[in-house]
Amino acid sequence: MADQDPYVVFTPSGKRGRVPAGTPVLQAARRFGVDLDSVCGGRGICSRCQVEPSFGPFPKHGITALHESLSAWNSVEERYDRIRGLKSGRRLGCQARIQGDVVIDVPSESQVHKQVVRKSADERPVEMDPAVRLHFVEVSQPDMHHPSGDLERVQEALARQWGIDDAEIDIPVLRSLQKLLRQGDWQITLAVHRDGISPPRILAAWPGFFDAGIYGLAIDLGSTTIAAHLCSLSDGSVAASSGIMNPQIRFGEDLMSRVSYAMMNPAGSDEMTIAVREALDSLITAVASEAGIDRQQILEAVIVCNPVMHHLLLGIDPVELGQAPFALATAAALSTDAKSLGWAAVAETARIYLLPCIAGHVGADCAAVILSEQPQKSQEKLLVVDVGTNAEIVFGDHTRVLACSSPTGPAFEGAQISAGQRAAPGAIERVEIDARTKEPRFKVVGGELWSDAEGFAAEVAASGVTGICGSGIIEAIAEMRKAGLLDASGLIGSPRQTGTERMQADGRTFSYLLHAGSDEGDVAVCVTQGDVRAVQLAKSALYAGAKLLMEEFGAGSVDRIILAGAFGSHISPLHAMILGMIPDCRLDCVSSAGNAAGTGARMALCSVSARREIERVVGGIEKIETAVEPKFQEHFVNANALPHSVDEFQQLAREVTLPSPMFNRADGESSSRRRRRR
Amino acid sequence: MADQDPYVVFTPSGKRGRVPAGTPVLQAARRFGVDLDSVCGGRGICSRCQVEPSFGPFPKHGITALHESLSAWNSVEERYDRIRGLKSGRRLGCQARIQGDVVIDVPSESQVHKQVVRKSADERPVEMDPAVRLHFVEVSQPDMHHPSGDLERVQEALARQWGIDDAEIDIPVLRSLQKLLRQGDWQITLAVHRDGISPPRILAAWPGFFDAGIYGLAIDLGSTTIAAHLCSLSDGSVAASSGIMNPQIRFGEDLMSRVSYAMMNPAGSDEMTIAVREALDSLITAVASEAGIDRQQILEAVIVCNPVMHHLLLGIDPVELGQAPFALATAAALSTDAKSLGWAAVAETARIYLLPCIAGHVGADCAAVILSEQPQKSQEKLLVVDVGTNAEIVFGDHTRVLACSSPTGPAFEGAQISAGQRAAPGAIERVEIDARTKEPRFKVVGGELWSDAEGFAAEVAASGVTGICGSGIIEAIAEMRKAGLLDASGLIGSPRQTGTERMQADGRTFSYLLHAGSDEGDVAVCVTQGDVRAVQLAKSALYAGAKLLMEEFGAGSVDRIILAGAFGSHISPLHAMILGMIPDCRLDCVSSAGNAAGTGARMALCSVSARREIERVVGGIEKIETAVEPKFQEHFVNANALPHSVDEFQQLAREVTLPSPMFNRADGESSSRRRRRR
Repeated sequence: MADQDPYVVFTPSGKRGRVPAGTPVLQAARRFGVDLDSVCGGRGICSRCQVEPSFGPFPKHGITALHESLSAWNSVEERYDRIRGLKSGRRLGCQARIQGDVVIDVPSESQVHKQVVRKSADERPVEMDPAVRLHFVEVSQPDMHHPSGDLERVQEALARQWGIDDAEIDIPVLRSLQKLLRQGDWQITLAVHRDGISPPRILAAWPGFFDAGIYGLAIDLGSTTIAAHLCSLSDGSVAASSGIMNPQIRFGEDLMSRVSYAMMNPAGSDEMTIAVREALDSLITAVASEAGIDRQQILEAVIVCNPVMHHLLLGIDPVELGQAPFALATAAALSTDAKSLGWAAVAETARIYLLPCIAGHVGADCAAVILSEQPQKSQEKLLVVDVGTNAEIVFGDHTRVLACSSPTGPAFEGAQISAGQRAAPGAIERVEIDARTKEPRFKVVGGELWSDAEGFAAEVAASGVTGICGSGIIEAIAEMRKAGLLDASGLIGSPRQTGTERMQADGRTFSYLLHAGSDEGDVAVCVTQGDVRAVQLAKSALYAGAKLLMEEFGAGSVDRIILAGAFGSHISPLHAMILGMIPDCRLDCVSSAGNAAGTGARMALCSVSARREIERVVGGIEKIETAVEPKFQEHFVNANALPHSVDEFQQLAREVTLPSPMFNRADGESSSRRRRRR
Repeated sequence: MADQDPYVVFTPSGKRGRVPAGTPVLQAARRFGVDLDSVCGGRGICSRCQVEPSFGPFPKHGITALHESLSAWNSVEERYDRIRGLKSGRRLGCQARIQGDVVIDVPSESQVHKQVVRKSADERPVEMDPAVRLHFVEVSQPDMHHPSGDLERVQEALARQWGIDDAEIDIPVLRSLQKLLRQGDWQITLAVHRDGISPPRILAAWPGFFDAGIYGLAIDLGSTTIAAHLCSLSDGSVAASSGIMNPQIRFGEDLMSRVSYAMMNPAGSDEMTIAVREALDSLITAVASEAGIDRQQILEAVIVCNPVMHHLLLGIDPVELGQAPFALATAAALSTDAKSLGWAAVAETARIYLLPCIAGHVGADCAAVILSEQPQKSQEKLLVVDVGTNAEIVFGDHTRVLACSSPTGPAFEGAQISAGQRAAPGAIERVEIDARTKEPRFKVVGGELWSDAEGFAAEVAASGVTGICGSGIIEAIAEMRKAGLLDASGLIGSPRQTGTERMQADGRTFSYLLHAGSDEGDVAVCVTQGDVRAVQLAKSALYAGAKLLMEEFGAGSVDRIILAGAFGSHISPLHAMILGMIPDCRLDCVSSAGNAAGTGARMALCSVSARREIERVVGGIEKIETAVEPKFQEHFVNANALPHSVDEFQQLAREVTLPSPMFNRADGESSSRRRRRR
């Protein structure tokens, strides 16, 4: 470049250099490696390459940008502005030509690798780097004197116009190619999959310029529930989400019962495979229809799940996962196609990506949690707990990360609890017990009001009070302990010991009456000694797993705790600590990550580099097998007690400001109203 | 290596060098790049690495090989010899250790790239270099303290034991992997596909050591007939062959009628795709069952076909092939899986390879003919003609190769001929006419005797004489010309002109009675003026195509002619020349290649390098589109005459010794017997 050539500076990247006068901004951006988007390849069709030039003196760069530094608006920009509107100050990067020194800003939405801010404030942004992207190409027409296939000319165009060499094509796309090319008058938009591992692959094609968007699915396939998020592959936004129960429940509530079912029934594994594949197919049909998206536009799915679900989804008999040494058929990340899962709800050529599994009991869902919560980058010692039927536990920092799975059983999900139920409308999910009167109040799923508030009865009229869910039973037991209704061993006190008539004899033990049944159909909800024992077993398993990892790490304490999983986001950290579910930690250092596995799935869907990152990180994780670790049993037995007495609780509560609604407790008057209601 | 280390010379390769004493022969062979086979990787299981050591003085190499130069027979070899027998003088290369200077011969069957001699003497050998090969591996067992997937340990074993890195696996194999590993006690035999383009891929697995063989299919998918050869992938031998009619015939006899059917019927293309895929599936089932081969052992298929069949097989609407510019959807070689063709008769993971097409009218079958006949290596100017409903014509030498397709129509296959029929039992296929008496004699398909021989009636009793097939009508017309019953324009003479009562008035023209019908059901077979015209049209098209290529090449003559195609092998070269089907050439330079397209398919099946070669060669072929080439029309019109009169024929016949049975003609006595028969 000659010294007198225009000097161009791109912000925010700071990339810069000289280009010959007359160079389009898009072309200059490409020369300097500036991240400026384009689907149409510079033909003034897609408007993805919008830029904001700045004028005036830039002493830092030693230049003064004049308005003449860019060519005047041309007819393409005028037409675009007239029809679709161009934000003031913006230019189309493929149309505006550089004529003099200038500073050009690439707004976030014009970047290929734009960062997409996640919905709630504490969530990290997702950087867009999807495997599937649209590319508009102009294809040369056939010449019978130099015969070549239409596909070969499409591949040539992709190589010349987009630098994508040796793109492969699936037969279903090849079948439609000739018709689409002629419909689009030798212009075509291709969806090309590139993951940096397998060769580029043309997954779909539309005649002419296509801009209705392409989509991917982030799927969190749990033992109990399945959630699917349909996301735009251009900006990561969620077009629709939906969830259903995992139909495999009819073969076994928890994973080990499903493994047993497979062992006992010759066709058992296949039955469960068919059930889950069909369920996913109809779930996807539902989200696509909700978002009004054609299946041909859905070109990828990322799935996270535990190892048993992983194997059953792929049609692999999970029997090896039920016995030592818990060997996975494959642990690595897996890339396949929708056809091999028999899905009809997505494009026939759609790609499937499964995150890597960590060990026989620690699955791709845990990998997704790690991708979302990044313990491997943490400066603090971080404990991440994904609470479900099995708890997946990760502990570590930027030096080391350890992971294990702990068999908590289904008590945290409301199963094996006398009045237990899933978190559905009518289930008690929050509980408080007045330390003085020993009287409880509660909230139910689907309601806003406490049970002692005016209007509660009306609010829950539709469902009634139907039982208690996982978070409810935890709070109930923690509150009982706090109110002195339970001792450290978990034994429920008698009416005489506790001074409340809510204690009811129940064989040789006692139960605490949380809610009396009613003629309107309300179910009586008691906390029985059996319930306390079930929760003690579950929380001991969870605590022992965390303790085992800490010990292996050589850490006496934890700096930060993240509770993940749909259930994790409903647990009150204080109650979890009172129960001894999790190690002691400053309460303001305990947070919920919501559905971190689902978030990890979405990150992997939106970003190929996120996939490479988690594949690399998983390889370095130290796996601990709790099932055969003698120390686990030791920690498990030691963790049985409910550690925090009333006094200890007061201490904990003084240390921090709690977000828990417990501290916004209604006054005595509302307490009396509560009593009147019963 | 120290100078005193043993010196080993391998024959026939001549590769040599020193190895430390005690090195197994197999290991030495690998070090020097000697082509010595092994499936079990040197574990004394597969016996593929048999070698023949030689002892005595080898002045050429400056060594004397003593019997002590190899370790004594060990228990593995003794056991192998006892159970399966080891040919005298042979050793197992993985067991025999080199202890002194020695010369070791690798017999042909112990070479990986062994040359397999084709059946008939004039055929070139096929070098084995198949894409799919068996590899026996020992896999480490899972360790729950260092969890990894079974697949990852299999991949590790393949890399360590066979140098095969990053092998991928198809889901169906992954599904069975855990069970097979445990059945085989952590030994497993894998069928791995490697074509040098896509990543290595595990297509099948068997527990322990598996040696029952793996197979591939060479399929010649013609418009009229489909032939499949089931070949061993270890030595290229044909285990079974079978053919069926192409069921698409019900949608149209020739290719253009099928294209029309697709254009006229919305679901027409799909109907034809389903028909041909199902036909192939049942054909494969038949050959596999004939050979007693399990479908799981059939791991690859190579298919050659013309462009229309190519598109219909893949499910691509062939409409573009019916109109200029005759654009192919794809011209390149294509690799896909059996699943995408819906085949159930082969392993679910089996790979499919389609040879490249050359142009819209010149298909993968022509590419296969080129692979088989190698015009690009010829020092002589070579004309290859694949005669079918469309004739594919190749002309050239090592400097240039040209190709075109010529619309000969179905006359050469017996269609559009008054008494025409396909080459089935009862069809007249050879004809001679006595130049003096003008009396004919003939042979029928399925018979050995001439019609004037004793026992002919008995021989054909089952079928009777049912009509005349393509080669029969060509010989009949050529013989008529030779006997002076036709003039150069193709006009059939009157009884008066020709002096035979076999000439029968037929409207304003005459017919020649070849065979009178009989009460026993024989059909009367005449050669009508219309038949002569139909054959003239067909042969003109063929000749004009050849002429066009020669002219483009700048060649006035041809040195060698190869007639390919099942039909090509039945044409008598002399008759073809009399008719003017092919340019003049020394008759001993005209040969039949049999089913050269099928041979090319088999070569591509057995050899990855053959695939790469034909892909490279096809790229350099000059394609001529006859349909729009004005000179083709000119040549076509000029070629209409039947060029060779009786005198010219005498001249041609004198030049060469003909292999044709015409020169073994029966004597006058048998002629008179023939007359008596009628």
